[in-house]
Amino acid sequence: MKEIAQKTRTAAQQLAILSDTARNQALEAIASALEKHQKEIIDANDADCRASEGVISKALSARLLLGENKLKGAIAGVRDVAKLADPLGTLTLHRELDQGLILRRVSCPLGVLGVIFEARPDALIQITSLAIKSGNGVILKGGKEALNTCTTLVKIIHEALSQTEVNPDAVQLLTTREEIKTLLSLDEYVDLIIPRGSNEFVRYVQENTKIPVLGHADGICHLFIDESADLDKAIPVTVDAKTQYPAACNAIETLLVHSAIAPKFLPLVAEALSAKGVKLKGDATTEAIIDCESATEEDWRTEYSDLILSIKIVDDLLGAIDHINNYGSKHTDGIITENQNNADTFLNQVDAAGVYHNCSTRFADGFRYGFGAEVGISTQKMPPRGPVGLEGLVTYKYKLTGNGDIAATYSGQNPKPFTHHDL
Amino acid sequence: MKEIAQKTRTAAQQLAILSDTARNQALEAIASALEKHQKEIIDANDADCRASEGVISKALSARLLLGENKLKGAIAGVRDVAKLADPLGTLTLHRELDQGLILRRVSCPLGVLGVIFEARPDALIQITSLAIKSGNGVILKGGKEALNTCTTLVKIIHEALSQTEVNPDAVQLLTTREEIKTLLSLDEYVDLIIPRGSNEFVRYVQENTKIPVLGHADGICHLFIDESADLDKAIPVTVDAKTQYPAACNAIETLLVHSAIAPKFLPLVAEALSAKGVKLKGDATTEAIIDCESATEEDWRTEYSDLILSIKIVDDLLGAIDHINNYGSKHTDGIITENQNNADTFLNQVDAAGVYHNCSTRFADGFRYGFGAEVGISTQKMPPRGPVGLEGLVTYKYKLTGNGDIAATYSGQNPKPFTHHDL
Repeated sequence: MKEIAQKTRTAAQQLAILSDTARNQALEAIASALEKHQKEIIDANDADCRASEGVISKALSARLLLGENKLKGAIAGVRDVAKLADPLGTLTLHRELDQGLILRRVSCPLGVLGVIFEARPDALIQITSLAIKSGNGVILKGGKEALNTCTTLVKIIHEALSQTEVNPDAVQLLTTREEIKTLLSLDEYVDLIIPRGSNEFVRYVQENTKIPVLGHADGICHLFIDESADLDKAIPVTVDAKTQYPAACNAIETLLVHSAIAPKFLPLVAEALSAKGVKLKGDATTEAIIDCESATEEDWRTEYSDLILSIKIVDDLLGAIDHINNYGSKHTDGIITENQNNADTFLNQVDAAGVYHNCSTRFADGFRYGFGAEVGISTQKMPPRGPVGLEGLVTYKYKLTGNGDIAATYSGQNPKPFTHHDL
Repeated sequence: MKEIAQKTRTAAQQLAILSDTARNQALEAIASALEKHQKEIIDANDADCRASEGVISKALSARLLLGENKLKGAIAGVRDVAKLADPLGTLTLHRELDQGLILRRVSCPLGVLGVIFEARPDALIQITSLAIKSGNGVILKGGKEALNTCTTLVKIIHEALSQTEVNPDAVQLLTTREEIKTLLSLDEYVDLIIPRGSNEFVRYVQENTKIPVLGHADGICHLFIDESADLDKAIPVTVDAKTQYPAACNAIETLLVHSAIAPKFLPLVAEALSAKGVKLKGDATTEAIIDCESATEEDWRTEYSDLILSIKIVDDLLGAIDHINNYGSKHTDGIITENQNNADTFLNQVDAAGVYHNCSTRFADGFRYGFGAEVGISTQKMPPRGPVGLEGLVTYKYKLTGNGDIAATYSGQNPKPFTHHDL
C-alpha cells in the first residue's frame, strides 16, 4: 500500500510538470478508450448490478447502474473537464522585492489525492478527469458493490494513459475496505482526502486522519422568514429549498420564522409544503398556529435528508442568527426579508460558507456558481470553503529569482530598503 | 476553559462586524495604554527576569527581557498593524448567476485563534494586534517564564479595550501549561492554532489537535550549486544562507553540489564558511575534496539551527531534486545556476513553499515578501503556504442575493441557463 502511494507520488511529480495540452491529450485518450470499450464496461457493470440485486436499496442500485446513457454522459464529462481553464501556472502575486529580485506566486498541483466514493462508477470517471486536469495523482476507492466496474474502468484508463505523456501509475485503485484505514495514515504521501458518502463516513474520515479533508459531514441548512418578508418570495423559496431535492446537503432542515409574521405565513407555507408531501415538526408556538408534530431539541441538530422540516418561531433576527450559529453546520443559510439592514446583519453575522438573501439554499453548488466542476462542498472555516471547483485541487509555491542576492544586504546597520513594487 | 472559549467566540462575533476604523481605534487605545503603563510593564518584566535568572539560557533570557526600547518597538508595531490594509470585506469573486441573482465572495475573520508562543512578551503585543486587525478573537498562552509580564499586558489591554467598541473578552490569556491540552481539544470553539517554539513542540501540537495548525515543525532548507553556477554568486549566497542568522528556519542545513563543479567550488566555499565559524560535514566524495567531518544519513534529516552545514555531492540536477524532495521539509530550497532550463526544472519540480534561483533562502519571510506582517511560515501543502501575512487569519464566505429565486427554475425539463457573467 505504501509502495502504491510512493508510485503514485512519483507519477504525480511527472504529471505535475506536463503542459495543459499534454494533460488534455491524456483526457481525450481516456474518453476515446472508454468509448471504444463501452461493451466491456457495461458488461462489468451488469455483473455488479446482478450481484447486488436485492441486497442494496433501490436508490443505491440506481447509482450503481451505469448504462449506456450515463456512460455517454460521463465520457462527455471527461471532454468538458479538458475544456476547463488550466488551473496550473496561474500567477497570483508578481512583485519586485528589489531591482532584479522578483517574487512570483504560482499555482501548482497538490500532489496526490485520496478519493473515497460511493458505488457510483461515473464518479470514478469524473474524479480521474479532475485529478489529471489539475496535475494530481489520485488513489481511488469506490464502494465495494461497484468493484467489477471500477476495476474495468481503471484497466481501460491505464491502457489509455500508457499511450500518452501521463504515467498510468498516477491513477490507482484500491479494492478492499481495509485499505481505507491505511490510506488515511499515509500523510507522507497523500496530500488531500476527499471522502464522499454518508455523514457518518465523512465524520469517521475527518476523525481518523492527519491529512487535510475536503468535504463536509452535516448539511444542516436554515431559512429564516423575517418579519418583513415578502410572502410571494418566502413561500416558493421555502418549498424549493426543502423539496427540490430533499436528499441534497443544501436542502433546508429547519425553518425559522419571526413571531410577528408566523400567524400569517405558517398556514400558507404549511399548505404549500403539505401539497409536496412534506411532514412538519414544530416547536410549541408553531403547534399553536398549525397542525404538526412536536419538534424536540434533537430536531434542531438533525439532517433529515428527507421530506421532513422542523419549524421554530424566533422573537427577532438575532434569535434566528443565534439559533443558526448554534445548531447549523456552517453550510448554507438564508434569510427572506425586504429589510436591507436585516439582510446585511444576517449575511454578516451568520457563520456559514453560504449566506443567502431572498433565494433558495439549493443554489449552493459548484456548477451553479459557475465553477465548471465541483470537487466538494467544504464546511470548514479555512479556505477552500463552500463549493469547491478545480482550484480546490491546487496549491501554490513562491518562486523567487535573483542575481546572487543575499539577505545581509537588507539587514544590519545600513540596510537597503526593499522596493516591494507589484509588477 | 470551555467557558473562556465560548466567551471569546461571542466577543469575536461582535468584533467580526466592526469597521476597520473601530478596529484601528482599539489598536490605538492599546498602544496608548501600553505607553501610559510602561513602568508597570517593565516592573512586571523585571520580576520575571529575576525569577528566571540562571534558570534559563542566555538566549531565552534575551527574549524574555522586554526593556524600554523593545517595548517602544512593540508599541510602534501596534500602530503599524493599524496602518495595514483592512484584510476584511475584500471581494474576490463578483458574479451574476442570472439577472438579479448576484454572488459575492467576501473575506471575513476566521473566528477564534489559539496562539501558543515562547516567553517573549513582545510577541503577545504583536499577536493581539494582528488578531484585532483581522477581526478575530484570540486565546493566548505564553511561555511560563513571562507569566507576570503577560498577565500585566493583558490586564492593560483589557482596560484599554473596555473604552472601545471591541469587547475585552476577545483577548484571553491562559496561564498554565495544562490548559494547552484543553485548548487543542476545543475544535468547536477555536478555528486556527498558531504554535511557536521548538520543532518538537510544533510537532506535538500538529499531532494532538483536529484544529487546523498554521506553522511548521522543521525548516530543512537546501541550496544546490549546479554545474553551471557562477561562483561569484554561489559563494556569497551559500555564506548568507547559512550564516546570516543560523537559528532561523530559512537558513540552509544541507548544501548539494554538482559533481562537475565540486572540485573547484568546495575548497573556496569551505574557506569562506570556515572564516564565519561554520563546521562542515560531508559525504565521502566531499571528504575526498575538502577536510571535514563525515556526514551520516541522519545529517540529511537534521535541522542544525546552528553554524553546521552538511554537504553532499550529486551527479546531476535530478539527483539534487530527488534529495530535496526526499529529505526536505517543503520550506525553502534554492538553486545557483546560469542555466535557465535547469533553473526552471528545479523551480517546477522541487516541492516546497519557496523555490529560489540565484538568491539566498533567507528571503523566505513575510516582511521581506512585503506582507507587512507575518503570522507564520506554513510548510503544509494546502494554502496558506509559505510565509503568511494577515490574509492567513481570514477566510471568506459566499453571499448570494436574489429576488425570490428558486433552483427549480434552472433544473428539470426546460431549465433556464445561468448567465455566469462576472461583474
